[in-house]
Amino acid sequence: MALPTRDALTFPDSQRQPIVPYLPSSSPSSSKPFVTLTFATSLDSNLSLSPGVQTALSGPESKAMTHYLRSEHQSILVGVGTAIADNPSLNCRLEGVGGYGGEGLSGQPAPIVVDPRARWDVQRSKCMKLAREKRGRAPWLVTSTPVPHETAHTLETLNGGFLHLGESPIDWRVLLRHLGMQGFRSVMIEGGGTVINDLLSPQYFDLVDSVIVTIAPTWLGKGGVQICPHQRTENGVRLPVGRLKDVKWVPLGEDVVLCGRPER
Amino acid sequence: MALPTRDALTFPDSQRQPIVPYLPSSSPSSSKPFVTLTFATSLDSNLSLSPGVQTALSGPESKAMTHYLRSEHQSILVGVGTAIADNPSLNCRLEGVGGYGGEGLSGQPAPIVVDPRARWDVQRSKCMKLAREKRGRAPWLVTSTPVPHETAHTLETLNGGFLHLGESPIDWRVLLRHLGMQGFRSVMIEGGGTVINDLLSPQYFDLVDSVIVTIAPTWLGKGGVQICPHQRTENGVRLPVGRLKDVKWVPLGEDVVLCGRPER
Repeated sequence: MALPTRDALTFPDSQRQPIVPYLPSSSPSSSKPFVTLTFATSLDSNLSLSPGVQTALSGPESKAMTHYLRSEHQSILVGVGTAIADNPSLNCRLEGVGGYGGEGLSGQPAPIVVDPRARWDVQRSKCMKLAREKRGRAPWLVTSTPVPHETAHTLETLNGGFLHLGESPIDWRVLLRHLGMQGFRSVMIEGGGTVINDLLSPQYFDLVDSVIVTIAPTWLGKGGVQICPHQRTENGVRLPVGRLKDVKWVPLGEDVVLCGRPER
Repeated sequence: MALPTRDALTFPDSQRQPIVPYLPSSSPSSSKPFVTLTFATSLDSNLSLSPGVQTALSGPESKAMTHYLRSEHQSILVGVGTAIADNPSLNCRLEGVGGYGGEGLSGQPAPIVVDPRARWDVQRSKCMKLAREKRGRAPWLVTSTPVPHETAHTLETLNGGFLHLGESPIDWRVLLRHLGMQGFRSVMIEGGGTVINDLLSPQYFDLVDSVIVTIAPTWLGKGGVQICPHQRTENGVRLPVGRLKDVKWVPLGEDVVLCGRPER
């Protein structure tokens, strides 16, 4: 076994323990992949100061937790806005997974980028670079337009892939069914704001199995990228959009991690 | 000593203990009253579903905590919007305080309503009714216009009062100086959105000594009354508006209580 690489992260067992009940089980009860919604916000529910700006919100413990969560999912999904703005690694850097002390690509989730109009420059992305270095899996693209031949070829060579859903905006029910057919039994949905707000809406909230939110003790102020789903109205009366049950609050450094399951 | 009244609340010692370090001390270090900012929000930082609508967000434990906090402050302050929309009691219903098993008005904070244009109907308010029943103190009014003679007379008869600051919008520095001169050594600022966002802004955040926020595991959605201060920009670069230090997260029922102090 190779030595752990220098940038590998550790997340201690004591901190894993309260989170374990919210992770995908090894014996899924449905063909739909297990869906974990996870993100970090400020107290005023902002992901970042403004669109396209990465904002350091949560502390090092929360970062290590994110990589632990990634190691427990078969795939991690982001929207194209996040892929373009952040050029994220979308791999797992937890000590002991493939590429970080472990064999092959064990514990590495597949990155999935929802990119209806195929705007993302896959070839030059950081996650493609990591896939070439065998420190992460090659991405999957979800598009509504055909993927260029060269991109498709590169993705397939590296065991990535693409799903051509033929509709925009993305129907999450259809997308998850296709991911299930491709063999993905779990997906960790990480952002950005559009994707998260979509899945918190009553239309899709029933698809979510676990929610893991990190909250940092800071206010970013108006004009940020905010998690705040569209309002819900029944018979002209406004109602809360969604609530969590089986709630656990886990202090982690200066932040808190909220674990819960959607109340149906 | 009278028997506890039926609607009295209890807040156990074990739950008080983590909060105590964030409460006003008995030996204040400045003539400015000790300022505690306290409110309850959803995960999307909403106080309520829409303006003028009271939304049950937090659980019974959080409600009992609020009344414990009230018992530890000499005054509680709300804006006129909240006073008109909610007609709040603004008293303390903790078992053992005056009117709820205790003598006189011991442990009862003075309600302060910031009402620049004197719009609030003091005479018919619930907190005036409670003052007449000796289950709470009479309110103080903060206005920029003269208070009607009859109102002033009633307030003074019941040991309430008024502050005529002669400026609108309210300058919080001036207001707190006047409250200090009136002998108030602590004030718990409870809402609504306009007041809280004002005090979270860089202009006034240094006036705040403690922040105690309850967060409920629910999303209310767009269009609510939101805690989200105005953005802060320096040299054209956006910066976080405010951050807390000495942070403690205390799970309480389904909610979490965040205690902290403003980072200067």
